[in-house]
Amino acid sequence: MGKLLVVGSVALDTVRTPFGEASEVLGGSATYFATAASYFTSVDLIAVVGEDFPEEHVKFLQRRGIDLTGLERRPGRTFRWKGEYTHQLNEAHTLDTRLNVFETFRPKIPESYRAPSMLFLGNIDPELQLEVLRQVQRPALVACDTMNFWIDRKREALWRVLEQVDVLMINDGEARALGGRPNLVQVARDILARGPKHLIVKRGEYGVLMFDHKRSFAAPAFPLELVRDPTGAGDTFAGGFVGYLAATGNLSEVAMRQAVIFGSVMASFTVEAFSLDRLRALDYKEIEARFGEFKRLTHFEDLV
Amino acid sequence: MGKLLVVGSVALDTVRTPFGEASEVLGGSATYFATAASYFTSVDLIAVVGEDFPEEHVKFLQRRGIDLTGLERRPGRTFRWKGEYTHQLNEAHTLDTRLNVFETFRPKIPESYRAPSMLFLGNIDPELQLEVLRQVQRPALVACDTMNFWIDRKREALWRVLEQVDVLMINDGEARALGGRPNLVQVARDILARGPKHLIVKRGEYGVLMFDHKRSFAAPAFPLELVRDPTGAGDTFAGGFVGYLAATGNLSEVAMRQAVIFGSVMASFTVEAFSLDRLRALDYKEIEARFGEFKRLTHFEDLV
Repeated sequence: MGKLLVVGSVALDTVRTPFGEASEVLGGSATYFATAASYFTSVDLIAVVGEDFPEEHVKFLQRRGIDLTGLERRPGRTFRWKGEYTHQLNEAHTLDTRLNVFETFRPKIPESYRAPSMLFLGNIDPELQLEVLRQVQRPALVACDTMNFWIDRKREALWRVLEQVDVLMINDGEARALGGRPNLVQVARDILARGPKHLIVKRGEYGVLMFDHKRSFAAPAFPLELVRDPTGAGDTFAGGFVGYLAATGNLSEVAMRQAVIFGSVMASFTVEAFSLDRLRALDYKEIEARFGEFKRLTHFEDLV
Repeated sequence: MGKLLVVGSVALDTVRTPFGEASEVLGGSATYFATAASYFTSVDLIAVVGEDFPEEHVKFLQRRGIDLTGLERRPGRTFRWKGEYTHQLNEAHTLDTRLNVFETFRPKIPESYRAPSMLFLGNIDPELQLEVLRQVQRPALVACDTMNFWIDRKREALWRVLEQVDVLMINDGEARALGGRPNLVQVARDILARGPKHLIVKRGEYGVLMFDHKRSFAAPAFPLELVRDPTGAGDTFAGGFVGYLAATGNLSEVAMRQAVIFGSVMASFTVEAFSLDRLRALDYKEIEARFGEFKRLTHFEDLV
């Protein structure tokens, strides 16, 4: 069986938060996802970068065991995002977006990637997400992210994607925009009726809610003393979530819940430092230890 | 041993939400607290009402077994609050506050109330909270609420209260205002260093965080399809929390966590209807059933 496949962006970010600033550092949805997932399983990556993309970043991703056959290098500059966060760390303020080579990105799936075990469609144009789905054999699980920009402008294409998606992961504002109502339980019912088997609503510092047709599951965010840079939290969550599921192939309800916790664990590490710096320094023992801390954080029967 | 004692307001509320309107209905912090707690234990109540306070409300509280020896009836009108909620149900917009007889309220503790098992100081002037503390024997647990108005105007008196308090329950905005920092983990450390053994941060639809010196505990809010009126959620949470602890006298870490869940259960019922209407119709079996649902909502090992 193939590996976990991710399609998304690889970018250079410039970020300012109350705790510092980082300029032209490694970012992008596919980067964060693949790095987080690489702690659990092997990952194939599809993205595009420009001629200016630093070789050290390529080497870092390779050291994480990520297959970069699908990382296209094209004439021009790499996608750049510039943003800042105030003390209200839940919300990024975009200062500048330069799509550059990402503007004309058309995902081409290498032969070796075409039977993925699982697939994550990062936040890109739903038309491109559909092109990816057309090029691969149906994996055991397809997860997908999107944003208000596509919900507003490409709603029909997005619903066509969602018909083929098992897990939709979006933030609460996006869920309300997609569902067209304020109440998340009602929004979840509406969205689940149109395709996805699971809806994961990301709520930043408040954690996540996972809905399926029968039940809901709530996981808090890990209470941290210092959130230096929230960039990439959502994609690292997705990477931990799908990476854990791909590692075992188990899609039971308990496994899905534990995947939510592993996703939350990975996100909690990411926000402790700028860019992927905390993930660079991470080892699997720390991931397991924080998984244990989530139990102590949430259980109210026997304390472990 | 004495009973659980609550000091706070008994009011007549006029509330508008996207789901309807209620005019001159029963409200007030002591009312919500005592009614919720009455499902677990016997409650003594201290508050003041005016001559216009409807007898039917007195009868309702008596039917819940609440001791009203300390409910003073004074010349003048009962405290009235008028507020509205938009779809952003986490935040009340006060349209009008008429303190009326509450303006000159000085809590007088009847002889029969002076050795309470536990004490809840509702959101009133910290000077009055201190007067209550002076009049009672030290109970096994003192819990307390406050608001930004007192944090801004009576900070010194409030800290004198907090030196004598075991559990401070406030919302996240209040916690940040009291701690003077944006990060809740740091705020908790600062507040716990000055008296309270536990800080419970109420986050509305996002649930609660409980901090003590060693650990933190996160409980989600129960995902509801219809939140008709959030008024009283915080005081009902407190009533379920302290009521459960008073019922058993057990103050272990597991008991405190389960009390947080019982508080969350009671709050989740309250917001399903205006005023105390859902609590009027509630029986203990429903409380137990929803406690079980909280397990299914939060656990990620063996599913029950």
